Formats: sequence, structure tokens, C-alpha cells
Amino acid sequence: MSVDPAAAQTLGTVRIVGTGLLGASIGLGLRGLGVRVLLHDPSPTALALARDVGAGEIDPGDVPVDLVVVGAPPDVTAGVVRAELAAHPRATVTDVASVKGGIAHALAGADGIDRYVGGHPMSGRERSGPTAGRGDLFVGRPWVVCPSSPGQARERTEAVRMLAIALGSTPVFMPASEHDDAVALVSHVPQIAASLVASRLVKAGDPAVGLAGQGLRDVTRIADSDPMLWAQILSANAPRVAGVLKDLRTDLDGMIEALDALNDSGAVGARAAVARVIHQGREGRERIPGKHGDPQTRYALVTALLPDSTGQLARLFEDIGEAGINVEEFSLEHIPGARVGLGHVSVLPAVRDALEKALTDRGWHVAA
Amino acid sequence: MSVDPAAAQTLGTVRIVGTGLLGASIGLGLRGLGVRVLLHDPSPTALALARDVGAGEIDPGDVPVDLVVVGAPPDVTAGVVRAELAAHPRATVTDVASVKGGIAHALAGADGIDRYVGGHPMSGRERSGPTAGRGDLFVGRPWVVCPSSPGQARERTEAVRMLAIALGSTPVFMPASEHDDAVALVSHVPQIAASLVASRLVKAGDPAVGLAGQGLRDVTRIADSDPMLWAQILSANAPRVAGVLKDLRTDLDGMIEALDALNDSGAVGARAAVARVIHQGREGRERIPGKHGDPQTRYALVTALLPDSTGQLARLFEDIGEAGINVEEFSLEHIPGARVGLGHVSVLPAVRDALEKALTDRGWHVAA
Repeated sequence: MSVDPAAAQTLGTVRIVGTGLLGASIGLGLRGLGVRVLLHDPSPTALALARDVGAGEIDPGDVPVDLVVVGAPPDVTAGVVRAELAAHPRATVTDVASVKGGIAHALAGADGIDRYVGGHPMSGRERSGPTAGRGDLFVGRPWVVCPSSPGQARERTEAVRMLAIALGSTPVFMPASEHDDAVALVSHVPQIAASLVASRLVKAGDPAVGLAGQGLRDVTRIADSDPMLWAQILSANAPRVAGVLKDLRTDLDGMIEALDALNDSGAVGARAAVARVIHQGREGRERIPGKHGDPQTRYALVTALLPDSTGQLARLFEDIGEAGINVEEFSLEHIPGARVGLGHVSVLPAVRDALEKALTDRGWHVAA
Repeated sequence: MSVDPAAAQTLGTVRIVGTGLLGASIGLGLRGLGVRVLLHDPSPTALALARDVGAGEIDPGDVPVDLVVVGAPPDVTAGVVRAELAAHPRATVTDVASVKGGIAHALAGADGIDRYVGGHPMSGRERSGPTAGRGDLFVGRPWVVCPSSPGQARERTEAVRMLAIALGSTPVFMPASEHDDAVALVSHVPQIAASLVASRLVKAGDPAVGLAGQGLRDVTRIADSDPMLWAQILSANAPRVAGVLKDLRTDLDGMIEALDALNDSGAVGARAAVARVIHQGREGRERIPGKHGDPQTRYALVTALLPDSTGQLARLFEDIGEAGINVEEFSLEHIPGARVGLGHVSVLPAVRDALEKALTDRGWHVAA
């Protein structure tokens, strides 16, 4: 999966309104594919920066455009889309906001609404602004496309689909409401859960956090996010996120009740209630698609001890490659206090033993 | 950090009672260091298996022992420790149960309690039983040591400290109550949170879970755990886990209330309340120690596109090594539907640009 120059050629002239991270990245990507890109931003500084990094030319205002991409902040997106529909009466207009229902609602019945197609490229970076823009920000990511009506003209949705394909994304069509339900579940609620778990550590003692292992690190990784950005995102999807959180709270209440009952020396069924929560989580976990969209594969794990010096990872993967074994997943784990790391190599179960033997033969210390 | 034969030599004869995963792994590790290991298990099958994999000899019953390691299930550990203290009146007795307070409580005032030292090697595998045992299961992991009284004789705690060091672990001394508080926070509550988030996916549609990204995968990874094992662990630490969960629920209630208020079109302060939860999570996340026990370092990220074929990872790390750059963290991400992966390489911020240039020069496609 990579950028697609043929798809880019179908786009015509593209105007980008709002040259922050996403707008500038789209401009950079399209410019790299030879598309004419006209930039506009209410901030002259952001606009000049986007031009200077190569995201396109400043829109002279008199060139007919085929596609307008609105990269404005979520809370002003609907207004900007409406203005663009009016100003460019032949163009298809799309946006990149991460919550879609509110915008669709605000635009209902707008003049030219049949030319608006909602979009959400599901990529982001820890940085923001035009200078953080990258033309390949979207490669390999889903790009959700939300038609403004079920019967919207194919010509309009096709323009946005081609934009996604040109930039290396996988277009995924769904109605705005379905999109917002989905991101509440796979993005917004996990973010809140990570933050809630990490919050518990604020007042923890050093010895306690010193026992932190990979499990805690994984659960809390995304807690390291921008509070103001997330306040915007969660607010825009408030009812759906609250709905999922209430379901989660029901299960949490059940767990607390079961633990309290156990504490009162073993109420009947309390232990089973605890096990049920874990069991249900396991079932849910199995729903997440695995590699290449296949149903999640169970991989076998081989862990190698890695001295902390340059070149060790290269040597490890060279040795694995020489053994003719394909790595399915890999993660590097640090051991607090030790000058050594653990390299967790996931492979298909059938080649697990071969990998372990190959590594041991080549002098690696293979740990459990 | 690796196994330590000198420490092993101080241990004398070691008896292991309970030859499941942990007991068998301790036996394997010690046998590899030349320690005499006597095995005992109420199950003749488990005992014979442990002997057959090389974890030690079956205890003939008439050999004086210096150290007894109880690897029984948590709910019978206290009783087994009491029996071992009585049967081996000179030996130090330790255990490996993952919750310590209940056992200490059950043993209070027991004959020979001054010879009991609680232990918790913080390692595990997805498998169980003696055949899953590995002598290097403990290498690089913390091994919590809980003296049975603040003034316990150094000779007793030293025996357990040496056991941990012999097997390559880092001994960490703390009282049983502090240990149980710590694991509630860094292990038990994250487990429950992961399960609660993953549970939400059970009834989700395929298109929704198809949008799952690395964030959801990380948050829910440990949800893939054994329900019966976790029912035991959580039950043994029920009051402490319930306490942390109630704090978490207070924050969750605050988040739900704020989202509901936003829904009723923007009650004053609701958006700030949402931001506060994310902000607090970020603060907590920063408490987790980073590499080598240093305060968590912020690394810079460079992402390379990896064609899904054998040898690509080797080539990547070879190229990084040639550039003289040390990799701090690495993770491999799959792109659903694409025959390509993303290799996320974390490095010290100072060498980020050099790495990006080195990879680009060597023909890698470096993504955002």
C-alpha cells in the first residue's frame, strides 16, 4: 500500500482550507503526486508556513477548483464547509474532522449539500501544525468516507475515495452515525480508560510504580495525549462516548460489587462474577482484526535477551532472516534497572521451535 | 543481568513444593547452576513431569534442606508454608504467591514464622504447568521479598534475596501490605480496565472493529488472559483492588457527568472537566519509570514502511546499526488489509533527524 499517482490524476485542482497538520500533510502528499494545490488559512502565518514547507501555492482566488478539503478545527468545520459549498458551486467539498454526526446535522438542508462528502483520515501524530505535516501521513491508514445521503451521486463520493487512494489510504464507506459509534468504541473510550488507569499512578509511591511491567505500559500508552485536543474530540462525540462509558460502568459496578462480596468472606457466585468480566474481555479482544485484516491470529512468542548496544537488533533480525523465519510481531521491552532488553518475537506457532533453536544455535539467550 | 552461579552456591539444598510453572522454572534454573533441588507435589503426574523436564530429583524425604520454596496455588499456600516450617525446623521457607497480605495474616503467630520470608517473582507466561517451565523465566524481572517482620534475621531474608539473584532477578524488599497495594495499582486494576474496554467490542459490528488501530490494541492486549487464574488473583487482593476501582469509578462518573452536561449544550466547565481527566492521566503516565529505571525519557519516533517479507527487519536494523544509532524502543504495527507493516523506531530526540536521513538514504520509505 502506497501513494497512487493514477488516482491523484483524477482529482483536478484541489483547494485546502485550513493548513494545520492534516491540511498541510494532504497538500504535501498531493504536491508530490503532481496535483495542483491551492492553500487557504485564516492565519497568514500558518498559510505562509504551509506554502514554505511545500504543501501548495497560496490560493489566488480566481482559479476554478474541483475538490475542496476543509481541514479546519472540528468546532468550525460545518461553517467552513457551508461557505466553501457556496463559494465553489461546482466543486466537491470534503472535510477531515474526527467526529462526523454533528457536522452532518449542522449542514442538513444546506445549499449544495449534495456536493459535500464527509471524511475522516484515521491518522495523527503527536505533533501539530503545518511544519509537522508529512505527505505520507495517511499511507496504510483507513480513511472513512461518509456520503451526505445514501443516494449521493457517485461522482462526488468517488472524488473523496480517489483522494484517499492517492494518498495511500484505504477508503472505508460508512454513514456518519455509524462512524461516530465506531470511533467511540475503538478510539474515544480506550483513550478515557487509559487516562483513568494512568491517573491512579499520580499519587502512587516510587516503589509501587517501580514494579510496573509491560502490561501497565501498554494499557496506559495513549494516556500520553493532548488534553485540549481530546476535550474537543470527546465533546464532539459526547452522547455516544457517554453511552459506551455507561455500559462500561455497569460492568465496573459488577466487578466492585463482586470484590466487596468476596471481602465479606465469599458470597456465592462472586468469584464467578469476577471471572466473567475477564472472560468477556477476552471474547472482545478476539474481535480485533489481526494482521492484514485476517481474523486475529494467535502467534507463538519467543523472547531473546538483548544486550543494550548498537547493532544487537540488527544481528537478531539477521539471524532470524537467515533461519528463513518471518516475524509477525515484534516488541522491545526494557527491564528497569538492567542494561539489557527483552525482544519479544511473535511468529506463527508452526515455526516457534525452529526459531528458538535457530536463535540458541546462534548464541542468543532465549528467555521465557 | 543474568543468572548468578555465585549466588546459587550460597543456597545449599533447595526443596520445591508444588511443581507447576513457577516451581518447575525455579528448579530448572537452580539445576542449571548446580544446586541440588528436591521436588515435591501432591500430584504424582506433575511431580514426574517436573523431574522429567530436569527441574530436580524427587525428594527422598530424608535429606536435610536449607531452603523450601512453596509454589502451591495461592489459596493453599499458607497451609503448605505452615506444614513446611514444621517439617523442616532449620530451613528458611519462602513462597511465590502473587498476593502476600492474606498469607502473612494466615501465618501470624505460626511456629517458626521467623523462618518464613514471603516472595513474589514478577514473571509469568501465557502457558502453565511444569512442561512450560523455563530456568530463565525470572531473568531481568523484579522479585519482591516480604520479610515476615521488620526485624527478621538477615540470614533468612538473605536466603531469598540470593535465590532471586541466582535466577537473574532483581530483589525488591517491601512489606506485604505495600506489595499488595502496588500490584493492585500496576497489575490488577490495569487488567480489569483492559478487560472492561475489550468487553465493549463483543457486540460491535465488523466495520467498527475494522477501524481499530494500535491504541485499542495496546489498551486491550492483556485482556487476553485466563479468567480462572485472574479470578483467584483478584479475589486474593479483593479489598485493595476494590479500593482502587472505586477511585477510578469516581473519575469515570465525573467524565460521564461532564459528557452528559455537554450534551445538554455546554454546561459551564464541562469541557474543562473532560480535559482534566486526560491531563491527570498524562501526569500519571509520566510516573512510570522508563528504560533502565531512569525517569521516563521522551523519545523521538521515526516510522519506516516495511514490506511484509522475510529479512526486512534485519535489513532495517542493519541500516540503523550502520548509522551508529541506538534504538531505544521498537514496535511493529500491522496495517489491516495491507501487505506492509509500520516499524516504529524510538530514538533519543538528538539523533532523530540523523536516523531519518540515514534510512531515507538507504532507500527506506519513512512515514510520519
